[in-house]
Amino acid sequence: MENQIFELQYAIDTFYFVICGALVMWMAAGFAMLEAGLVRAKNTTEILTKNVALFAIACTMYMVCGYAIMYDGGIFLKGITDFDLGGVLSASAENGFDGDSVYSGASDFFFQVVFVATAMSIVSGAVAERMKLWAFLLFAVVMTGVIYPLEGSWTWGGDDVFTMYNLGDLGFSDFAGSGIVHMAGAAAALAGVLLLGPRKGKYGANGQINAIPGANLPLATLGTFILWMGWFGFNGGSVLKLGDAANAHSVAVVFMNTNAAAAGGAIAALIVARILFGKSDLTMLLNGALAGLVAITAEPSTPTPLLATLFGALGGVLVVFSIVTLDKLKIDDPVGAISVHGVVGLLGLLLVPLTNSDSSFSGQIIGALTIFIWVFVASLIVWGILKAVMGVRVTEEEEYEGMDLVDCGMEAYPEFVKS
Amino acid sequence: MENQIFELQYAIDTFYFVICGALVMWMAAGFAMLEAGLVRAKNTTEILTKNVALFAIACTMYMVCGYAIMYDGGIFLKGITDFDLGGVLSASAENGFDGDSVYSGASDFFFQVVFVATAMSIVSGAVAERMKLWAFLLFAVVMTGVIYPLEGSWTWGGDDVFTMYNLGDLGFSDFAGSGIVHMAGAAAALAGVLLLGPRKGKYGANGQINAIPGANLPLATLGTFILWMGWFGFNGGSVLKLGDAANAHSVAVVFMNTNAAAAGGAIAALIVARILFGKSDLTMLLNGALAGLVAITAEPSTPTPLLATLFGALGGVLVVFSIVTLDKLKIDDPVGAISVHGVVGLLGLLLVPLTNSDSSFSGQIIGALTIFIWVFVASLIVWGILKAVMGVRVTEEEEYEGMDLVDCGMEAYPEFVKS
Amino acid sequence: MENQIFELQYAIDTFYFVICGALVMWMAAGFAMLEAGLVRAKNTTEILTKNVALFAIACTMYMVCGYAIMYDGGIFLKGITDFDLGGVLSASAENGFDGDSVYSGASDFFFQVVFVATAMSIVSGAVAERMKLWAFLLFAVVMTGVIYPLEGSWTWGGDDVFTMYNLGDLGFSDFAGSGIVHMAGAAAALAGVLLLGPRKGKYGANGQINAIPGANLPLATLGTFILWMGWFGFNGGSVLKLGDAANAHSVAVVFMNTNAAAAGGAIAALIVARILFGKSDLTMLLNGALAGLVAITAEPSTPTPLLATLFGALGGVLVVFSIVTLDKLKIDDPVGAISVHGVVGLLGLLLVPLTNSDSSFSGQIIGALTIFIWVFVASLIVWGILKAVMGVRVTEEEEYEGMDLVDCGMEAYPEFVKS
Repeated sequence: MENQIFELQYAIDTFYFVICGALVMWMAAGFAMLEAGLVRAKNTTEILTKNVALFAIACTMYMVCGYAIMYDGGIFLKGITDFDLGGVLSASAENGFDGDSVYSGASDFFFQVVFVATAMSIVSGAVAERMKLWAFLLFAVVMTGVIYPLEGSWTWGGDDVFTMYNLGDLGFSDFAGSGIVHMAGAAAALAGVLLLGPRKGKYGANGQINAIPGANLPLATLGTFILWMGWFGFNGGSVLKLGDAANAHSVAVVFMNTNAAAAGGAIAALIVARILFGKSDLTMLLNGALAGLVAITAEPSTPTPLLATLFGALGGVLVVFSIVTLDKLKIDDPVGAISVHGVVGLLGLLLVPLTNSDSSFSGQIIGALTIFIWVFVASLIVWGILKAVMGVRVTEEEEYEGMDLVDCGMEAYPEFVKS
Repeated sequence: MENQIFELQYAIDTFYFVICGALVMWMAAGFAMLEAGLVRAKNTTEILTKNVALFAIACTMYMVCGYAIMYDGGIFLKGITDFDLGGVLSASAENGFDGDSVYSGASDFFFQVVFVATAMSIVSGAVAERMKLWAFLLFAVVMTGVIYPLEGSWTWGGDDVFTMYNLGDLGFSDFAGSGIVHMAGAAAALAGVLLLGPRKGKYGANGQINAIPGANLPLATLGTFILWMGWFGFNGGSVLKLGDAANAHSVAVVFMNTNAAAAGGAIAALIVARILFGKSDLTMLLNGALAGLVAITAEPSTPTPLLATLFGALGGVLVVFSIVTLDKLKIDDPVGAISVHGVVGLLGLLLVPLTNSDSSFSGQIIGALTIFIWVFVASLIVWGILKAVMGVRVTEEEEYEGMDLVDCGMEAYPEFVKS
Repeated sequence: MENQIFELQYAIDTFYFVICGALVMWMAAGFAMLEAGLVRAKNTTEILTKNVALFAIACTMYMVCGYAIMYDGGIFLKGITDFDLGGVLSASAENGFDGDSVYSGASDFFFQVVFVATAMSIVSGAVAERMKLWAFLLFAVVMTGVIYPLEGSWTWGGDDVFTMYNLGDLGFSDFAGSGIVHMAGAAAALAGVLLLGPRKGKYGANGQINAIPGANLPLATLGTFILWMGWFGFNGGSVLKLGDAANAHSVAVVFMNTNAAAAGGAIAALIVARILFGKSDLTMLLNGALAGLVAITAEPSTPTPLLATLFGALGGVLVVFSIVTLDKLKIDDPVGAISVHGVVGLLGLLLVPLTNSDSSFSGQIIGALTIFIWVFVASLIVWGILKAVMGVRVTEEEEYEGMDLVDCGMEAYPEFVKS
């Protein structure tokens, strides 16, 4: 009968993992809709193509080499095996039920593979409306196959040859990836944006900043809701275990706090934007909700719901000022991804020691610097090589005409006349 | 080993709760898309802003005071605690496994907090295209913090100071909230609509009723599908337990019947609209599906699937006639929310005694009246105060120009020329 | 205590079924968005109406007679019962825990009922933009009530009077329905398309093929992401059991491989289309992802993830050539459904024996032929009767004006000027 209990626990933990993984996969749709809503109509087909393709590339590259680099001490092709039962039968026979959860290796792979896609999705919005499609896709190959897995292994990986050091030993803690996933994605995005330069017409000759409105705000709102929902899997699944009372409770707390932080971020950003701009700015509201989610991601299991709401609200305030500041610096990020995921990702890391005594401020700073420097520099090198070899930016004429006809040969909304 | 079984049951019940809660949260996206699709392009950004903001406000207010009022006999700030394990460890040690499910308090909070947002989402559609954004948001604060929680406590709450009487003792039964959530939302909406008056141009001087078509029907359809899916969590989670055979079976029956009722409502409304109007009216089809869902919500666990389909079909027929009738009464509800959630919510309550012998018609009527009168009168007072203090309706000129530029400073579809 | 374990297993298996069923229901939204995005603006309301109505009809007809035909040896009205606990209590008392999962009959019905809707959704896209709405809906009645259930019973049904023979005994294996669901839907679609003929203007007098671009590509992309997500329930739920280690592991492998195949299909189709057409064709990318999903559906539990990616890639290559070929044959399928679900469905069946020794190539071919011939001929007869009695195609003038005003009396995008 002990084995039966053990098997039930195995089953419930495995199911929990694949359901959370499916929710994280759903975030890919969220990024696609958010970005498609925030770019101009003429660049919509291209950004949709980019989002679907990068998800597919991330899944494939992570199977070919990323997962092995991050967790297995190997360098490639975890995909040739079919994953076994996770040693459950032998563990069950030898040790009986010992209170630890064991789950299918395939469920773990599925959960991790959709994470890497999230990191890559962050990049696509920031470089929108001016980057060559295939340069971006080649970058995605390197980012999801090598740059992210190596970086992730320093905190989440096992003891393997690629682990130069373990950030956790230095007091660094990042529950679900404010730094490891979100800030990492933003670092790669920033490198790309600096190399690309701003979109034509974004910054005027006399220093004025021109708003370039998104073509379809219902889509952007839908994308935000999708991300909000998917984030329950992203953070909730990062407890990694469900099958006993303490872990199940922790999963419930994470769902509750993730929702609370998003709510706090949304309200704070709406109010700040209302005060600063005199309008109830929908795009700031959406970015505020996302900022709340990013802010809580580094530690959603220890705050009270009130604290989670406040942490989210801090993220919501910060993201508005960050977006304004980046524009002043002429760093052109059409969807605000660098602010939402990078600046607020750092905030999330720095909030962890307030409620989690296993982490320290120094550890968080060391970890953040390590991640940022590695991803930024590695990305800059890869973007630089791509620029030298094939170019990363479309011509001025192509940018004017729009990426859709240039790269994809079709318009996103062929029947809706443009103004 | 008893404790291990107990913990597994705790884990599965908690997981069931948070997954159902995530599905209910997803309904917020459904309402947003439904309403954004059914208003005119010039009011789309504003209704999106409203929907995201009201969800965030609902989550925060319910944490600050709503949950405590509804379930805890306190008045505020459940959010300062971090919720404990739900007493499971002590229960487990003292009593062993006793067949009752116990689950994380955080999972219960998460499930309840997304319910209150649903009630509030119902309001936003009915008052669309003419109400000031911030008046609406202030109303949301009171509705989600006090009006709904107090009303909900009379049926679903525990024994606490705010419970004037327990409606359940009077033979009132409302499984997942046809009355407590849906009719309550509609009552608040009706109060707002009566105070606001109809949109300019909706009713002509000679009594004619002018159709004001929604700008984006694919969005409205998507919203309906999202609500249909989320409703599985709404009704399915309201069984409140999963971890034994009888409750698990009940959850499955609820999923099956919820789907059957939506199907019945859709078919009935399509046929009735075809007969009445001579056209296969998509918006009536969508409202029919939603009406089927509302009709079954008061008791989805006892009917056979055939009965569930018929109950849904009754809702689908009723909603068409209700929408036509409200227009004749010059009660202007741009998305049909009062008919779908209010009129059909009442129908749902009255159907309960047919299959559930724990309820009585008199009990259902008393409960319905109690809920309606409380929510309607309280809402009317709050709307009235808001009208006196800051005004609830935009100026005629602003209404003509559209809420988007007035309130939000940005258009939803800036590149698509309007006809 | 054995009973307690038995009940927990019952609970987890039932929950797994209803969650997977909810994901499959979600696919209905995916088909609706995909098809609404790929037709012209003037036919959008009608295709949305079709998709919502067919789902409702499928759910009702399957309850009235389909489920009984497919699984119960009866011919109708399973819906008058309320389903019992699935015999669990007696099984539990008599046999104790025996390692087999038992689950609620209602959860099984719910899972199966959303499958039949999927088969029917495949048809609606192929006959878009020219078929009369009510002719289509009447076809849906027969397809979901009789044609599909009878066909499905030959492989998935029990021993009942309608089972002429059992395809499984002949070496035919179709895990989640590459043939039984997808190719069957495509066969019915092909029969309809051949009877209907191509849209006006699709094929020129001199043999040229005119592209008719879809009106809203973000919708089509959203639909694809929804289908991708829903497919986890479609394939993952088809393991039919979760509550022990071996089955849970199988579920995890199926999620992993389903995702891998979609990724492989997307990448392959993108590259092939780039080479053939010189453009990164978004619609081919989307069809490639869906083709990968269809290709793996016949056997997602036995391949390694690398093989799953390659099988998906084969599907992605095949679908591009199939779409091009069907156009040369003047078989006009506006969304590519016959290629995605029919041609690649057949591929999926033929790939099974490579990794599953319980099937044989001869068995797969016999099964494929049986399914195709039955569904194609039966559909042709039904479409033919409908053509004779009421006509299946709108008039040329109506086709020019668009289905929306003719059938539904409302435009999908009334404010967006058409070019």
